[in-house]
Amino acid sequence: MNQDELKKAVGVKSVDYIKSDTVVGLGTGSTVYYMIEELGKRYQSGEIKNIVAVTTSSRSEKQAQSLGIPTKDLNDVDHIDLTIDGADQIDKNYQGIKGGGAAHLLEKMVAINSTKNIWIVDQSKMADTLGSFPLPLEVIPFGCQKTFEDLQKENLKPEFRLDENGKCVLTHNKNYVIDLKVGTIEHPHLLADWLDHQVGIVAHGLFLDIVNTIIVGFEDGPKVIDNIR
Amino acid sequence: MNQDELKKAVGVKSVDYIKSDTVVGLGTGSTVYYMIEELGKRYQSGEIKNIVAVTTSSRSEKQAQSLGIPTKDLNDVDHIDLTIDGADQIDKNYQGIKGGGAAHLLEKMVAINSTKNIWIVDQSKMADTLGSFPLPLEVIPFGCQKTFEDLQKENLKPEFRLDENGKCVLTHNKNYVIDLKVGTIEHPHLLADWLDHQVGIVAHGLFLDIVNTIIVGFEDGPKVIDNIR
Repeated sequence: MNQDELKKAVGVKSVDYIKSDTVVGLGTGSTVYYMIEELGKRYQSGEIKNIVAVTTSSRSEKQAQSLGIPTKDLNDVDHIDLTIDGADQIDKNYQGIKGGGAAHLLEKMVAINSTKNIWIVDQSKMADTLGSFPLPLEVIPFGCQKTFEDLQKENLKPEFRLDENGKCVLTHNKNYVIDLKVGTIEHPHLLADWLDHQVGIVAHGLFLDIVNTIIVGFEDGPKVIDNIR
Repeated sequence: MNQDELKKAVGVKSVDYIKSDTVVGLGTGSTVYYMIEELGKRYQSGEIKNIVAVTTSSRSEKQAQSLGIPTKDLNDVDHIDLTIDGADQIDKNYQGIKGGGAAHLLEKMVAINSTKNIWIVDQSKMADTLGSFPLPLEVIPFGCQKTFEDLQKENLKPEFRLDENGKCVLTHNKNYVIDLKVGTIEHPHLLADWLDHQVGIVAHGLFLDIVNTIIVGFEDGPKVIDNIR
């Protein structure tokens, strides 16, 4: 199986966890795409009934709606029963980095308001330690140069994320993205705490103590890591 | 003297602290208005020369420019030597609440990048304990209802700030403002730490361990509290 087939296998597998009569959070990304596609099939066939989806991006929202899955804003649901999302890197303690798609603020809002979170990834995302995948930050444009310099002083190897025209990538909230190319994050909780306290940083991509179940795509099929917390 | 005259007296007095050949941060508000007006006079007369102003709102920026004071973006200066701003409440330990004008994120960015901070207030802003002035938060619209409910659960008495048409007030960054009508903030550092860790809260109005000098307007003239830190 190539990487795309691994992604599709975990995406399809994860839909087994979606029950009828629930509110489902839908993440964003290439693996999630396959999950939503499969969910659409089972929803249309009547195997899964009466669900409402809360999405983390307009892309996922459009895909869900095109399949007939009703969507609601996070503000308009009581709670989310289960969210299925991808991850950019997962360490041996099942802590994660997200935000490669610059949607980590909305993804984190949905995740912390979900009773259960499942991450679906191919095997290339599993690592001993976080950090070889750059850690994305969302920063306000006002004074972002100062925020950048503060990150440099902490030796966090910041780089502004640029689009193909060399302009700063904009998030949903019209903020910039800085990626920390730090290599190895020895102490994710300490780093998360420091980042939380920085005035110009709106959100960071460390998703700690959040995931309950991970489905990993291996050559010989999806493997489920359950009961994480 | 009425409150307006008290404000004017401290605004004028604070300009004594602005030296030639410096970068000056200009806050926002009714007291700051008088400060900028006086700065303009002394700049035009040549008493204060060669300054650059970094402003925290378009209002202050326009006022400064109308007086001929050159302005720069925070990103385009090396550092700020001195920022003069107002405050909504100051406690006996010289900790403050700001954000009555919904500009506290930009104000905080400017404050933390300033070598020295002066607050100018009339005597009504001085209090034993913070909290009788509502503590402003800047929150992202996505999932703000969940953020609101989390604040309720913590018994922090949140209220969305609305404009005259009953719509949510928008900040510079198009976020909403929630005011915490908590009455008394016994432990401002603990509260600030908790707020810093909330995903949907972009900024809060607790300005702790920031101010160096406070100028307070009393009936018998401005009183300077210096060498605070």
